[in-house]
Amino acid sequence: MAALNVRSVLVTGSNRGIGLELIRQLAGKSKSPEFIFATCRDPAGPQAQDLKNLAAKNQGIEIIPLDTCKPSSIKAAVAKVTEQLKGSGLNLLINNAGIVKPFTALESETPEGMLEVYKTNVVGTMMVSQAFLPLLRKASHESSQKGMSCSKAAIVNLSSECGSITNLLAWEIAHILNYRCSKAALNMLTKCQSLGYAEDQILCVPLHPGWLQTEMGNSAMPAPMTVEEGVQKILDTLSQLSEKDSGTFVDLEGKVLPW
Amino acid sequence: MAALNVRSVLVTGSNRGIGLELIRQLAGKSKSPEFIFATCRDPAGPQAQDLKNLAAKNQGIEIIPLDTCKPSSIKAAVAKVTEQLKGSGLNLLINNAGIVKPFTALESETPEGMLEVYKTNVVGTMMVSQAFLPLLRKASHESSQKGMSCSKAAIVNLSSECGSITNLLAWEIAHILNYRCSKAALNMLTKCQSLGYAEDQILCVPLHPGWLQTEMGNSAMPAPMTVEEGVQKILDTLSQLSEKDSGTFVDLEGKVLPW
Repeated sequence: MAALNVRSVLVTGSNRGIGLELIRQLAGKSKSPEFIFATCRDPAGPQAQDLKNLAAKNQGIEIIPLDTCKPSSIKAAVAKVTEQLKGSGLNLLINNAGIVKPFTALESETPEGMLEVYKTNVVGTMMVSQAFLPLLRKASHESSQKGMSCSKAAIVNLSSECGSITNLLAWEIAHILNYRCSKAALNMLTKCQSLGYAEDQILCVPLHPGWLQTEMGNSAMPAPMTVEEGVQKILDTLSQLSEKDSGTFVDLEGKVLPW
Repeated sequence: MAALNVRSVLVTGSNRGIGLELIRQLAGKSKSPEFIFATCRDPAGPQAQDLKNLAAKNQGIEIIPLDTCKPSSIKAAVAKVTEQLKGSGLNLLINNAGIVKPFTALESETPEGMLEVYKTNVVGTMMVSQAFLPLLRKASHESSQKGMSCSKAAIVNLSSECGSITNLLAWEIAHILNYRCSKAALNMLTKCQSLGYAEDQILCVPLHPGWLQTEMGNSAMPAPMTVEEGVQKILDTLSQLSEKDSGTFVDLEGKVLPW
């Protein structure tokens, strides 16, 4: 694995799928981060059992409750993370939490579905980023590294090539307007973040994780790549991102995708 | 003015700004459309007085109440338009209704603002398009014209270069994340519509109307072009769009913009 040397990282939606595997591989690194914050909506619920089992074996993993759509929940999570970090900043925020309303055709897409998915995938990501910005700024300012990197200070938003207006990945398989519109908007959000936070030297990228064998990835048809392999590639790519990549749309192998 | 020979056209949000001027110029053409449906949320309110004055002088203009965010209002509008058309289809649907929460900086953007603007600019446009689709299909199928055109059957969604993730028009003047994210998502919606309705020969484009001297256009600083001049260019461009343009992002002069 490449050298992603972050001292602290936070991953939202980390109780399953890509989020859980990110936590697993980050904790399993030879030089693993000192602070690995694994957040999910309901750590006490049955859907968080795998994450709890993983955390029980790894002292560095701290499970934090976080509903990315609820301002009060976000505020409480920031307070907990701030306390744990004891005055230091947060290097890497991975906004992985996301949803889709699958099996929707263009003509039968509902307003409720559109709004629910936008709220989680875009508005939630925006709110979480705003709330953790002071900690990201702190990490950036206390770093002695020149230029931008994910090891210094970064916001990585899990997007999708389904949200590329140019490519429209898998249109023939699924229209999923709710998801595509949310990811196009998420790409816009991330581009805006890259401009707004450039002065603070915070690297911002939307990342297409590939089509992986998660519950979401398999919802239309079996995905071609295992989560383990995909996440290895993602972490390798994150370790190699620099200033020139901020504000670009990258895939798991670092290839730049069109908007 | 170029030859935009539509028999029927509907413009949402037509009580002011670009919408009102579209109605004025469409009604003032030498070969004006037989049916000009001018919709707005509250035709009885003071904000619709200019439109009512215009309609009083032009028999072809039919004012229809339409709140693009309310399914019941959309349903009632479709019923009224269907009745008026007496069995024929609707050639041109111009989704012009849109809002912005101006003066918002990246860090102070609110979830409420993000959701409200998305609801009107994207979800409302989706619902209106879905509801009028049968009439658009009818117009397309009853037409003897070869290929696609705005005179045959088309959905034109008023977008903005502010929603170009590549260009981010006027970023230095206004962050307006709520608006940018909504317009990026609207571009995605329109691209999906262009693919979904290609078989029905319905032309679909997002159109950047330029920065015009409307209330919205002047909200950050005075806009460089009059509404009259801008709308002349828009109607000229619409008259020239063909099959190859469907699913591309065009500006008022027909230039293709990057997503």
